[in-house]
Amino acid sequence: MDNANTWSTLRELRRAAPLVHSITNYVAMDVTANALLAIGASPAMVHAIEEVEEFVAISSALVVNIGTLSPTWVDSMTRAARHANALGKPWVLDPVGSGATSYRTLVSRELARLHPTVLRGNASEILAVAGGEARTKGVDSVHGSEQALGVARELAAELGCVVAVTGEVDVVSDGARVLRVENGHPMMTKVTALGCAATALTGAFLAVQPDPLLASAQALGVLGLCGEIAARAADGPGSLRWRLLDALYNLDEAAVLRGLRIRE
Amino acid sequence: MDNANTWSTLRELRRAAPLVHSITNYVAMDVTANALLAIGASPAMVHAIEEVEEFVAISSALVVNIGTLSPTWVDSMTRAARHANALGKPWVLDPVGSGATSYRTLVSRELARLHPTVLRGNASEILAVAGGEARTKGVDSVHGSEQALGVARELAAELGCVVAVTGEVDVVSDGARVLRVENGHPMMTKVTALGCAATALTGAFLAVQPDPLLASAQALGVLGLCGEIAARAADGPGSLRWRLLDALYNLDEAAVLRGLRIRE
Amino acid sequence: MDNANTWSTLRELRRAAPLVHSITNYVAMDVTANALLAIGASPAMVHAIEEVEEFVAISSALVVNIGTLSPTWVDSMTRAARHANALGKPWVLDPVGSGATSYRTLVSRELARLHPTVLRGNASEILAVAGGEARTKGVDSVHGSEQALGVARELAAELGCVVAVTGEVDVVSDGARVLRVENGHPMMTKVTALGCAATALTGAFLAVQPDPLLASAQALGVLGLCGEIAARAADGPGSLRWRLLDALYNLDEAAVLRGLRIRE
Repeated sequence: MDNANTWSTLRELRRAAPLVHSITNYVAMDVTANALLAIGASPAMVHAIEEVEEFVAISSALVVNIGTLSPTWVDSMTRAARHANALGKPWVLDPVGSGATSYRTLVSRELARLHPTVLRGNASEILAVAGGEARTKGVDSVHGSEQALGVARELAAELGCVVAVTGEVDVVSDGARVLRVENGHPMMTKVTALGCAATALTGAFLAVQPDPLLASAQALGVLGLCGEIAARAADGPGSLRWRLLDALYNLDEAAVLRGLRIRE
Repeated sequence: MDNANTWSTLRELRRAAPLVHSITNYVAMDVTANALLAIGASPAMVHAIEEVEEFVAISSALVVNIGTLSPTWVDSMTRAARHANALGKPWVLDPVGSGATSYRTLVSRELARLHPTVLRGNASEILAVAGGEARTKGVDSVHGSEQALGVARELAAELGCVVAVTGEVDVVSDGARVLRVENGHPMMTKVTALGCAATALTGAFLAVQPDPLLASAQALGVLGLCGEIAARAADGPGSLRWRLLDALYNLDEAAVLRGLRIRE
Repeated sequence: MDNANTWSTLRELRRAAPLVHSITNYVAMDVTANALLAIGASPAMVHAIEEVEEFVAISSALVVNIGTLSPTWVDSMTRAARHANALGKPWVLDPVGSGATSYRTLVSRELARLHPTVLRGNASEILAVAGGEARTKGVDSVHGSEQALGVARELAAELGCVVAVTGEVDVVSDGARVLRVENGHPMMTKVTALGCAATALTGAFLAVQPDPLLASAQALGVLGLCGEIAARAADGPGSLRWRLLDALYNLDEAAVLRGLRIRE
């Protein structure tokens, strides 16, 4: 893919500073909000059922992440997702830990059937949403993303959404087209909730990039590239985390044009 | 204002290490607790209705922040605030996102009528609490603090509390007096929950400074000054955040006397 | 104690990457998850009563921390703890703030009677669980750990578990044996939730070290040692925190053999 397109999306994101409504898990809230601010979006975490519809209405995109789900929160996620659909706003679903417990698998499948714009997970989670016999290790994948590609394409076609499977190489498909994102660094798996941050950034990119396949690949590419930049100077996951936020904030045209590796 | 007075308050804060009871939002908990520890206070996050009154009773100040509100939490906030009043303990209210949804506006107005010692928000939030036609962008302000000054003074007089409006310049009023705090750095808006940290530090200063107008201005000045110190060496919001905590911990008399810019 | 044993446990932990199920407080979630990842474990925060039993079943250890407790969460903690017992999985209890309110004291005592493998707290918390007239200052201790040693030994014998009392020197007892851990740095008390991180690491060590007395002492020693390493280069609590995560990630055999100070 043309990296100039990604740069153009990112420039527009920083200009528009879209309000991204996140109903996400407790562990991810801090790093997610900071990643969204660093890239140039305006994050807000709002989950009460009394106000999620009104908040969707003023937001440019919605992020739904089931990491620390409970029935009350799932009700709010469902209400918010339906309202995003009614208003034609993009939303992204992160089925954290789908496959780990029957409750989590059930909820993630029900939410996936509400027509998210993008479904983003690791290979085990995507396989679990698709209904296969996926095993998982808690919230970490035991499958490679390439293994999940066939299932992801079928699931994307069936659900009518984009499916993004993240791993060593990320694969993104809308059922017809496939993009591979080769950016990223292994140390990123040692910082909690960077998968959740990928989902949140996807929400921010969806707010300004009308093609959800491109939005997904661009968000994952930008996060992965910033992870690479951060890892060059990091001494471990503690320093990787803040350096990643600095890199998101400072990412410039030259780095995007030179460093992004998004392939068809 | 005399910066020696601020230094004296800060020295007393570090000596007393007051217990600051926070009922705050999920996003802000980590950075809020760390900011309170760094400045020398002893933070505790306690929200269950079964124990908030007992906890208020052993605390020196209460912080109420509605960022990720839900009815259960609002009940606890209300109970805790009333008990703080009954015991004569200072408390500070942060009406995060007031104006963004009708639920949030309603709750923030109800809590504001419970006689907080200090009400701290951005201009949009303060205008919304005051009942005007304020618009907001999620949790970020679309108004300048000077625009809100007239309303803030009236609101302070009406509620019988101090109103602190933070922005590029912070304005603080008790209805009669007005102080302006000129410290701060624009990059601070790219780190999540630093507004919430300002509210939490206000709680800590209220525990040791009997004049709530001074306590508010001093807390905002100290946070802003530490933000400036941090920004000098920061490469982005990731490094700004931890450098800010280091600066709060290390802030000394010389830096306070030289760097604080609190004007009448 | 032989430091080679600790190194052997740590090597096994990194090889096995055990899934550690945490039901913990909102403030601690981020740093806890990052500490577990940095040391080589696989953390997951899961609290819904609908799924805690299934999640315990796929985990290697359970962490229960009452820092921001409420009745719903306590129900899940109780259910999870009972299920861990039924399946013979180790679990660790952190009675945060026990003694500060009657609700907190009651809940911590009830959970302590469910036969945790390890009970980890500061001196005030352990004294409160034991039923004495302990006073506490919010969530911070007002007692030294040596003062609590006698009570801790008796409590360990009574409950049939290991009791770990952390402080300037940590004391750990199973009722018969006593170990002292002399690692650590005073600046660690200025970073929120490092006590909670100690509890979480204890859970990770329990997953691979069958002797819970050794597991507790080794976890506390490793965290304290990494705190010392981090403090050498830190300018304050902000930098201490990320340097501690880097140190957990990089800790090698030479540093363990040379630096750990665990005494009988």
